[in-house]
Amino acid sequence: MKKLLFVIFLLTLVSTNQLLAQNNSMDNKIEEIIKQLTLKEKLDMCHAQSKFSSKGVARLGIPEIWMSDGPHGVRAEIAWDNWEHAGWTNDSCTAFPALTCLAATFNPKLSYKYGKAIGEEARYRKKDILLGPGVNIYRTPLNGRNFEYMGEDPYLASKMVVPYIHGVQENGVAACVKHYVLNNQEHWRDHINVELSDRALHEIYLPAFKAAVQEGKVWSIMGAYNQVRGQYCCHNDFLVNKILKGDWKFDGVLVTDWGATHDTKEAALNGLDIEMGTGTDGLTSSLKNAYDNYFMANPLLKMIQSGEIEESVIDEKVERILRLMFRTNMDTSRPLGSMNSQEHFDVARKIAQEGIVLLKNKNKFFPIDPEKVQTIAVIGENATKMMTKGGGSSELKTIHEISPLEGIQKRFKNAKIIHAMGYSSGPSAYGRVIDSKLNADSLKNAALEIASKADIVLFLGGLNKNHHQDCEGDDRKHFSLPFGQDDLISEIVKINKNTAVILVSGNAVEIPWVDQVKGIVQTWYLGSEAGRAIADILSGDVNPSGKLPFSFPVKLEDNAAHSFDELSYPGDGTNQEYKEDILVGYRWHDTKNIKPLYAFGYGLSYTSFMISKAESDKTSYKKDDIITVSCEIENTGKEKGAEVIQIYVNDVQSSVLRPFKELKAFKKVLLNAGEETTVSLQIPAKDLAFFDDSIMDWKLEEGQFKLLIGVSSKEIKETLLIEVK
Amino acid sequence: MKKLLFVIFLLTLVSTNQLLAQNNSMDNKIEEIIKQLTLKEKLDMCHAQSKFSSKGVARLGIPEIWMSDGPHGVRAEIAWDNWEHAGWTNDSCTAFPALTCLAATFNPKLSYKYGKAIGEEARYRKKDILLGPGVNIYRTPLNGRNFEYMGEDPYLASKMVVPYIHGVQENGVAACVKHYVLNNQEHWRDHINVELSDRALHEIYLPAFKAAVQEGKVWSIMGAYNQVRGQYCCHNDFLVNKILKGDWKFDGVLVTDWGATHDTKEAALNGLDIEMGTGTDGLTSSLKNAYDNYFMANPLLKMIQSGEIEESVIDEKVERILRLMFRTNMDTSRPLGSMNSQEHFDVARKIAQEGIVLLKNKNKFFPIDPEKVQTIAVIGENATKMMTKGGGSSELKTIHEISPLEGIQKRFKNAKIIHAMGYSSGPSAYGRVIDSKLNADSLKNAALEIASKADIVLFLGGLNKNHHQDCEGDDRKHFSLPFGQDDLISEIVKINKNTAVILVSGNAVEIPWVDQVKGIVQTWYLGSEAGRAIADILSGDVNPSGKLPFSFPVKLEDNAAHSFDELSYPGDGTNQEYKEDILVGYRWHDTKNIKPLYAFGYGLSYTSFMISKAESDKTSYKKDDIITVSCEIENTGKEKGAEVIQIYVNDVQSSVLRPFKELKAFKKVLLNAGEETTVSLQIPAKDLAFFDDSIMDWKLEEGQFKLLIGVSSKEIKETLLIEVK
Repeated sequence: MKKLLFVIFLLTLVSTNQLLAQNNSMDNKIEEIIKQLTLKEKLDMCHAQSKFSSKGVARLGIPEIWMSDGPHGVRAEIAWDNWEHAGWTNDSCTAFPALTCLAATFNPKLSYKYGKAIGEEARYRKKDILLGPGVNIYRTPLNGRNFEYMGEDPYLASKMVVPYIHGVQENGVAACVKHYVLNNQEHWRDHINVELSDRALHEIYLPAFKAAVQEGKVWSIMGAYNQVRGQYCCHNDFLVNKILKGDWKFDGVLVTDWGATHDTKEAALNGLDIEMGTGTDGLTSSLKNAYDNYFMANPLLKMIQSGEIEESVIDEKVERILRLMFRTNMDTSRPLGSMNSQEHFDVARKIAQEGIVLLKNKNKFFPIDPEKVQTIAVIGENATKMMTKGGGSSELKTIHEISPLEGIQKRFKNAKIIHAMGYSSGPSAYGRVIDSKLNADSLKNAALEIASKADIVLFLGGLNKNHHQDCEGDDRKHFSLPFGQDDLISEIVKINKNTAVILVSGNAVEIPWVDQVKGIVQTWYLGSEAGRAIADILSGDVNPSGKLPFSFPVKLEDNAAHSFDELSYPGDGTNQEYKEDILVGYRWHDTKNIKPLYAFGYGLSYTSFMISKAESDKTSYKKDDIITVSCEIENTGKEKGAEVIQIYVNDVQSSVLRPFKELKAFKKVLLNAGEETTVSLQIPAKDLAFFDDSIMDWKLEEGQFKLLIGVSSKEIKETLLIEVK
Repeated sequence: MKKLLFVIFLLTLVSTNQLLAQNNSMDNKIEEIIKQLTLKEKLDMCHAQSKFSSKGVARLGIPEIWMSDGPHGVRAEIAWDNWEHAGWTNDSCTAFPALTCLAATFNPKLSYKYGKAIGEEARYRKKDILLGPGVNIYRTPLNGRNFEYMGEDPYLASKMVVPYIHGVQENGVAACVKHYVLNNQEHWRDHINVELSDRALHEIYLPAFKAAVQEGKVWSIMGAYNQVRGQYCCHNDFLVNKILKGDWKFDGVLVTDWGATHDTKEAALNGLDIEMGTGTDGLTSSLKNAYDNYFMANPLLKMIQSGEIEESVIDEKVERILRLMFRTNMDTSRPLGSMNSQEHFDVARKIAQEGIVLLKNKNKFFPIDPEKVQTIAVIGENATKMMTKGGGSSELKTIHEISPLEGIQKRFKNAKIIHAMGYSSGPSAYGRVIDSKLNADSLKNAALEIASKADIVLFLGGLNKNHHQDCEGDDRKHFSLPFGQDDLISEIVKINKNTAVILVSGNAVEIPWVDQVKGIVQTWYLGSEAGRAIADILSGDVNPSGKLPFSFPVKLEDNAAHSFDELSYPGDGTNQEYKEDILVGYRWHDTKNIKPLYAFGYGLSYTSFMISKAESDKTSYKKDDIITVSCEIENTGKEKGAEVIQIYVNDVQSSVLRPFKELKAFKKVLLNAGEETTVSLQIPAKDLAFFDDSIMDWKLEEGQFKLLIGVSSKEIKETLLIEVK
C-alpha cells in the first residue's frame, strides 16, 4: 500500500515527462531522474547553497536538503550565509546528554530512544540530515571534542551507535555519522596528517563506522578535517573509495565537515558527495555567488567540460544524493516529528540518570537523605553554568536547562542549600579569562566560609566547554582541572571533611584529591534535565548504574597516546603517528600494567551484586559458531539497581601482540533487592579475530581464549577457558 | 488506501496517549487533540509567532503554519521579525500575471492552471497557506490594489476564483481568499468605515467570496483592514459570524490581514481564528515576546481566566486551525511541489497571452510583421521597468522577468529596435520623484528624436506599481497617466503617425489621445514572461483574446463611485457610503446610459466572428430550472482565434431597480479560420434573482427576462426573450 502511494506521488512529480513507470524500483527512478538533469543541476546538488542546505532541482520538485548540527539536540537556526543565529524563536530544543554520557549508560535501548527522540525533533524542525552521532575513538583525554563521542572502546561505540541511527532514521531523517575518520584531536585538526597501522585503523578506529554502515544502515557519513596517510579524509581514496564505499558497500552520502574540502579532482574522484562550508567568501568577492566557487561547483564544472573528469563521476554522486532523498524528504510516509515533548524530556533525564558514574562513595556518603534537615554547601561555578552553551557546533538553544544547583534545591527541600562559586572561569568562551588574584581570593574565601557552616559540601566543578575546555576547535592544554579547582578542593576538605566532588566534564581529569574527598560523581554534560538527573542520583531516587566509557589515568603520561614523544601527540605540526598502535585506553593500561585511577567499565552502585556460575554453552567452537555465555547475577544489597555484565576476551596464545583483554559483550541487568537472574550473552567466534595487515583481512587463529566476566575491565568475577578450532 | 495510511500516521503522532482509535473521523481526531492542549497552547495557535508563521504544538507534533504572500507568485523569504528580506537565495519564483490579467482571459481553465502552478511553488517552498487570491470588486479605477483583483463583475470573479482555489489546494496548500470584505480602496483602508445596502453587499461584493467558500471549498479567508457598519472586518459579527460562518457554513480559518485586529473581545467572539501582523513591537518593549501582547494572546488569556470569555470559544478556533492542518501540513499524501519549471513559465506566458486586451487596431496596425525590415522605436519607461517589483505585498523576487523591450528585440530580429525612456518616474517606489524640468525635457527630446527616425513607434507606458501608482497602501491620485505621458504621446504622434500605445497597468486610465494613435493594447502586470507574451501578441504569433474585466470610463466622473460627493469616494475620513449601490461598473454605465470609452467584456481580435442562431431550450422556465442557451459562432476571418461569448440578462419588469444588464454566463471558444461551431451555455434560473433586503434573501420574481448574447457588454449580437414562472 505504502509503495503504491509512493508511485502515485512520483507520477505527480515528473508526470509531464512520463518517465516513471509504475513498477519501477527506486534505482530505476533515480536513473530516470538523472537523465533529466543538466550538468549544472547535478553539480548544484553536490555542494552547499547556504550554511546548512544544498540545492534540489526546483523545476522537477526534487527538494533541497536541510541539515542541522547536533548529536545532542537540533541546533538553533543559523543565518543563510553566516554563522550568526537567524533569530528565530521556534528553535529551542530538548538538549539531550552528550554522547559520552550515552555511552556510559552501556544501554543500547536508551541509545535507540535517544535517536528516536532527537530524530523527531529534527523532523519537526524540517531537517533532512542530522549531523551526528560522533564515534571518533577517545585516544587522549585532552581531545576537546571527546564529550561528543562514545568513548575509547570500538565494541561499545559500535553497539551504541547502531540503535541511535535506527532511532533517528525511523523519522525519515538521515543520521550522519562523524567524523570519518581519525579526527581524534582538535589541535591542528584542519591539516594534521595521521599515520597509523592498518591494524590499529581496523581494530580500533573503524569498527564503529563499519557498524554504523553495515548494522545501522546509516544514510550519510561526515568526512573528517584531518589527513590520513597524506590525503584529506573527505576525499581520501583509501578510506572512502576502498573501505567505506568499496569493502563496506556504503550506499549513502559522504558529506564534508564544514570547510574540509581541499581539492576539486580528489573530491570528484575520491568519493565526496556533498561539499559544505568551504570558506570561499573571502576568495570570491568578485563572484555573485560564492557557492559557485566551491571545489565541486565551477572548478569541477570546468574539469568536466574539459574532459578531465567524466560526467558519470557526478552521476554517481547524484544517485547517492537522490537515494538519500528517497529515504528522507521524498518519503511521504515519514512521520511529522515533535519537539520538547514530556517524552523527550523523560528520555533525556533517563539517559542522564543511567549515564552518571559514581566513582567513589566512602562510607556510603551517597545517597544523601533528602528528608534530613541539614545544611548543604554547593560550591563551584558548574553548579549554575549552562552546559548546553559552548563546546562548538554542538552548542544548543534549549527550551530549558535545569542547573545542578536548581536540581538540588528542588529535591532537598528540607535542607538549607547555600551556594558559592568558589572560582571563576572568566567572562566568555573565547574571551580573556578574568582571573585576578584578588577576584580569585574573594571567591575562594566566600566558598570556604560557607563550607565551614555546612554539614555537607558538594563541589560542582570540572570542565566547562569553553575554549581549551571540552570544546571544538582545540584541545585541552592540561590534564588537571582549570581555574585553581584542585587547590580549592584541598582547602575545602581541610575545613569540611564531608565533601564530595561532582565532576561535570566529557573527559577524564587528574584527581589529586581523590583520597581527600568522601565521594566523586562523574556527571558529563547532561543537557536540559541535568540538575534533575544529578539530584535523582544524589538523593538515591535513582541508583547509579553508569560505567566509564574510557579509562581515568592517574596522570596524563599513563595514557597511551601520551606515552611517546610529541609525534604521537599532538604531532609535529604536519604529521602524527599513533605509536601506541592498537593499545588504546584500557588495552594499554592492561597490557602495559599501568593501573588507571578508574578503569574502563567501572562504576559504583548503591547496592551490591554477585556474579556466579558463569559457563559457556560449549568448550570448543568452530569459527562460525556463536559463543553463548551465561551466568547468574544477584542483587545482594538493599536497593533496586542495575549492573553491567561485561565479557572481555583474552587470547591465550597469539602469533601477534594482542591487548590483554578486549570487550566483546555486555548486558545491563536491572534487579530488585535480593533478586537473582540468569543472564545470557553471545559472542560470535569470529569477533575473536585480529586484523592481520599482512593479508589485509581479519584472522581468527585457532587456540585457547579466556572469557573474562566482570563488572569493569578491572573487576573480573569469573573466567572461562574455551577453544576455537 | 490513502485514508488508512493517514490513520497510521496519526497513531504515530500521538501514539503515547493512545487517543486516536483507528476509525476515528477527522472531527473526532480534532476533538481528541484539543483535549490534550493547554489553554496557552491553544492561544498560541491563534496568533503569529513571526511575520509569517504561527505556532503549532511541538510536543505533540502539531506543525507550525507557514504562510506566504502572493496571489501572483510566492514572495521572497522575509525575516523572522521584521519586513526585511531574509537574504536567502533559494526563493526566486515564477511571477505569474497579476490577477486582473487572469480575469481578462475569461478562461476558468487557465485559472485552474494558475492555481495549480502557484500552489506547486508554494508547496516546494514549504508554505501551508498562500495568501491569495484577491476578489475585491473593482469599484473605482483609483484603487491602488485593483491589479490584484478580478475586476468589476461578481459573476466573472466568482467563476475565475473557484478553479484557482482548486488548483492551489490540490497541492495541500490552503488558498486564502482576500480581503473579506469591501477593502475596495487603499486610501484610509486601515480605518475607513463602509456603509452600503444589504443588496449591494450581496449582489456585488460578496458573490466571489461566497463562490470561494461554497464552490471553491476554500480553506482560509483573509479579513480586510477596513470597517463595515462600524465594526472592523476581521471581527465583524455580521460579516463573519452571520454570513461567512453562519449562512455559508465556512469551515476554514479566518486569518487577519497583517495588523488588522483591533479588539480582543470582538476578535474572540466574532470569528477571528488567526491574528497576524499586529504591530505591538512599539507597545511591548518591556515584554520578552511582543507576540504575547497580541490581542488574541495574553489579553485574551486574561479574559478567559477571568471568565469573561469561555474557553470553548478558543476551542472552536483551534478546531478550525487543526482542520486546515489536516488538509495541508498534516496531510502526508500531499505532493512535494516544484518551482520554476518550464510548465510554470508556460502557464504564466499562456495566461499573459490570453489576458492581453487589444483595445484599438486602426487599419490593422497590429500584428506587426516580424519578418519585415524596418525601424521600431520603443519609447517609455515601462519598456524596461521590472513590474514584479513594487506594488506592496505582491512584490516578487522572480527568477527572471522578460521586459517588453527584451521580448520585442527577441521576436523582431529583422527590425532595428531603438529605445528611449521618454519620461522618468523617479528613483524608487517611496522615494522622492526626481522630475526636474531639465531632466524631463532631455528624456522627451531623445524620445522624439528616435520617433522621427522610426517606421513604427510603440509607446510602452502606463502605471508602474510605485506609491500612488497601482500599489498597496494608498490609491492613485489621478485618473490620468502620470509623468507627463499624455503630453509625450501627443507630441510623438505629431512626429510619427504610426504610433501605438501599449499600456502596462492594472487599472483603467484616462486616454485623451485615443483618436490620435493607431493602436492600443492593455497588457497588465504580466510577470516573468511579460515581454515574451507582449511580443507574441504584437507579432501575431498569438491572436489576442483578452476581454476587459472592468469598464474604461472616458473620464473619472463617469465611474459610479465618483459620480457622487466625497462621502462616496474616498469617504469623509471616518465613513464612506457606497452611493452607487448596486450600479457598479458596466451596471452603472448601462443603466445611466453613460458610454464608456471601452466597455466591460470588450477586446479585439485579429480575426472576426459571427454569432447567429441563438436559441434557448425553452421559452418558459420554473425557478429551479436550468436555462440552456445555444448559438452558432463562426470565425469569419483569416486567423485562428478565440472569442468570449457573453450572456447578460435584462429583467424586463421588476419591482425594484435592476441594472440594465448583468453577466450570467460566458464561454471562451477557440476556432480556426472559417471554422464554425455550436456553443451551449447554461444559466440556473435562480441566478436571475435579486437580493431583497426586505426579506434578507434572494428573490426571483416571475416575469419576462431578456437574454442578451454578445461579445462585450456593449456588443449584443442576439437577444432572446424568456419567461420565469
